[in-house]
Amino acid sequence: MDIPELFLKKNEDKRLRLGHLWIFSNEIDSKRSPLNGFAPGDLARVLAHDGKPLGTAYVNPNALICARLLSRKPNLKCGANFFKERLQTALALRETVFDKPYYRLVFGESDGLPGLVIDRFGDVLSVQITTAGIEQRKDILLAALVDVLDPAAIVFKNDNSQRQLEGLDTASVVAYGALPESLIIEENGAKFRIDILNGQKTGWFYDHRMSRAELARIAKGRRVLDLFSYTGAWAMPSAIAGALEVTCVDGSESALNLARENAVLNGVEDRVQFAHSDVFDFLKEARQERRLYDMIVLDPPALIKRKKDYQQGYEAYRRLNHLALQVLAKNGILISASCSFHLSQGDLHEILRSSGRHIDRHLTFIAQGGQGPDHPIDPAIPETQYLKTFFCSVSSAL
Amino acid sequence: MDIPELFLKKNEDKRLRLGHLWIFSNEIDSKRSPLNGFAPGDLARVLAHDGKPLGTAYVNPNALICARLLSRKPNLKCGANFFKERLQTALALRETVFDKPYYRLVFGESDGLPGLVIDRFGDVLSVQITTAGIEQRKDILLAALVDVLDPAAIVFKNDNSQRQLEGLDTASVVAYGALPESLIIEENGAKFRIDILNGQKTGWFYDHRMSRAELARIAKGRRVLDLFSYTGAWAMPSAIAGALEVTCVDGSESALNLARENAVLNGVEDRVQFAHSDVFDFLKEARQERRLYDMIVLDPPALIKRKKDYQQGYEAYRRLNHLALQVLAKNGILISASCSFHLSQGDLHEILRSSGRHIDRHLTFIAQGGQGPDHPIDPAIPETQYLKTFFCSVSSAL
Repeated sequence: MDIPELFLKKNEDKRLRLGHLWIFSNEIDSKRSPLNGFAPGDLARVLAHDGKPLGTAYVNPNALICARLLSRKPNLKCGANFFKERLQTALALRETVFDKPYYRLVFGESDGLPGLVIDRFGDVLSVQITTAGIEQRKDILLAALVDVLDPAAIVFKNDNSQRQLEGLDTASVVAYGALPESLIIEENGAKFRIDILNGQKTGWFYDHRMSRAELARIAKGRRVLDLFSYTGAWAMPSAIAGALEVTCVDGSESALNLARENAVLNGVEDRVQFAHSDVFDFLKEARQERRLYDMIVLDPPALIKRKKDYQQGYEAYRRLNHLALQVLAKNGILISASCSFHLSQGDLHEILRSSGRHIDRHLTFIAQGGQGPDHPIDPAIPETQYLKTFFCSVSSAL
Repeated sequence: MDIPELFLKKNEDKRLRLGHLWIFSNEIDSKRSPLNGFAPGDLARVLAHDGKPLGTAYVNPNALICARLLSRKPNLKCGANFFKERLQTALALRETVFDKPYYRLVFGESDGLPGLVIDRFGDVLSVQITTAGIEQRKDILLAALVDVLDPAAIVFKNDNSQRQLEGLDTASVVAYGALPESLIIEENGAKFRIDILNGQKTGWFYDHRMSRAELARIAKGRRVLDLFSYTGAWAMPSAIAGALEVTCVDGSESALNLARENAVLNGVEDRVQFAHSDVFDFLKEARQERRLYDMIVLDPPALIKRKKDYQQGYEAYRRLNHLALQVLAKNGILISASCSFHLSQGDLHEILRSSGRHIDRHLTFIAQGGQGPDHPIDPAIPETQYLKTFFCSVSSAL
């Protein structure tokens, strides 16, 4: 028995048995297995109240989610083989689904690697570690990544706020190899320059890939408005697909500069415009000036980060969708997305229904999108499902 | 005031104000506007209890859904112009989304034409009328279809059980032009022969089109099992995409005969097999013989047709998914669908979660599909959303 034991209180094994991997600190039987007996990142054999083994977890006594299961095996050795096997399984799935090496390689819990996200940009890997359990083993992880993928560079992109909850630093670093001067990826046939160290999250958002492919199918001949455009992930495929004109709106000048570069990279700079503006202000002005667009992409950053921000965030989503519909031309398409876990699919559905009724239009959903296959959803872990996208056809009232 | 009035009871206008189009017979203020004053198919001006106008509906005093709104206008003339405008709007949306004239042209309530479904097979139209309101106006509809689409043939495909609820006959008829000897359509690059008069529903199921395109992306090199294959709508794109072998299982010999024809039509007859069998029996035998498949399509007909069949149907879906997972090879893909409105997205999600746990596999959703854009969903009418499809990646337990 080389791994120390962590006992749960009575009935607190239920979530794990259903398939979830998280254990909250108030679920621990502290008398039998005090959390302060563990250092951040230590392994534990997790046991139900009746002593039945549930698997192996790593522990962080200082975090609200104090342990995450790595395996249903009671005595997992979380070494090189463990990481290699999990990486190989994750890689095999991506290679089944995608032709080119541009995807999220590891999506945390859904790939059996809680606390770890890895985006693959060809032979460059952008790694986000959010827990002490993975941080403790980052050297083993690094060696496994080199072994499985032989990359040119690995970046530990550590500027996420979750790390603070686990008591980890937030300094990003090139941990292996050297970053190329210019890093370019491909998505749905469009090219994008990636700035890992200065970009948001890993440097790119692969999650909307399938919805962007869908957008490209219907963008031809349309005037497209890309709200919260960031570096133009929706704008470029629209322009390439033959949109008449595309307007990118974003509050970040540096994001728009990268979007400008991307327009040139894709040879569509003559049809893409850039507005450095607050999105609310832009929409109000467009409404006043009666400017109309045939297709609007509304893909804001997470407006509800914590549960307590729900009411305020819901209202922001409602106002944005309402404003966007007011500058949509007749028989136009609104592509409305939310990446806020706390805004449910049903919430966004209701916002769109009521907005359509409110401005007296006939709004129907012609497609519903979500995370692509490189962001698998674990049906037992609701937190792995966060992205929802509605493609709305909007015509005159019946 | 040329249209008679239909008054609702107090507060019964709520559903309509939210965007729904249905009125149930117990919501009518029968004292002010007795239903037996209407003949099946008559128009009515619908009014809230306080006299505020809600729109124009057609009425069937003998049906549970005794009226369906056609328009929010209080004095709609439901003539040639009405049908032409609705058809043109519906057509414009399909032409935006699809290159070729093979799609559901009208999807009832979602296209502002309650009680009407039209599938377009090139220049042949298969029309399902399910209400007296549309049946009464079928000559106007026919003329509008000829005017807008100039088809070679129009079939009224009347063999659906909903018609009986409205007191309508169930004899199908070629109502215009002549059917070609052999009718062939294209979907995702595959060809299919359609038998409108003898086939199920309109003769084809366009609704899974987008999910079948997704299937084709990942079928290469796999052994595919197509359960409830009908005429091979999932099997053909799999074989064309390079599946090693495809096995169609169906209980209908005539459906399999058409599937055999379709295999020849697509030049894949060497890789497609056919098993005339009950699907439960087939799966049990495959399990006993330890036969495994890399990809399984489980797309049963509606197993829950009425709410009262829910428990029995849920259990049938559970058993089917459970059995299918047992003959799925390691790192296989299960594509599990349900077209039963009464089985919710959440129900099928839960069936898959529990089945994966029960046989100790790690099951994640890599994609979730639904009706294609020619089956728009009205967010105010839950009944317009019926199809759900989960693409599951299934690997060893964590």
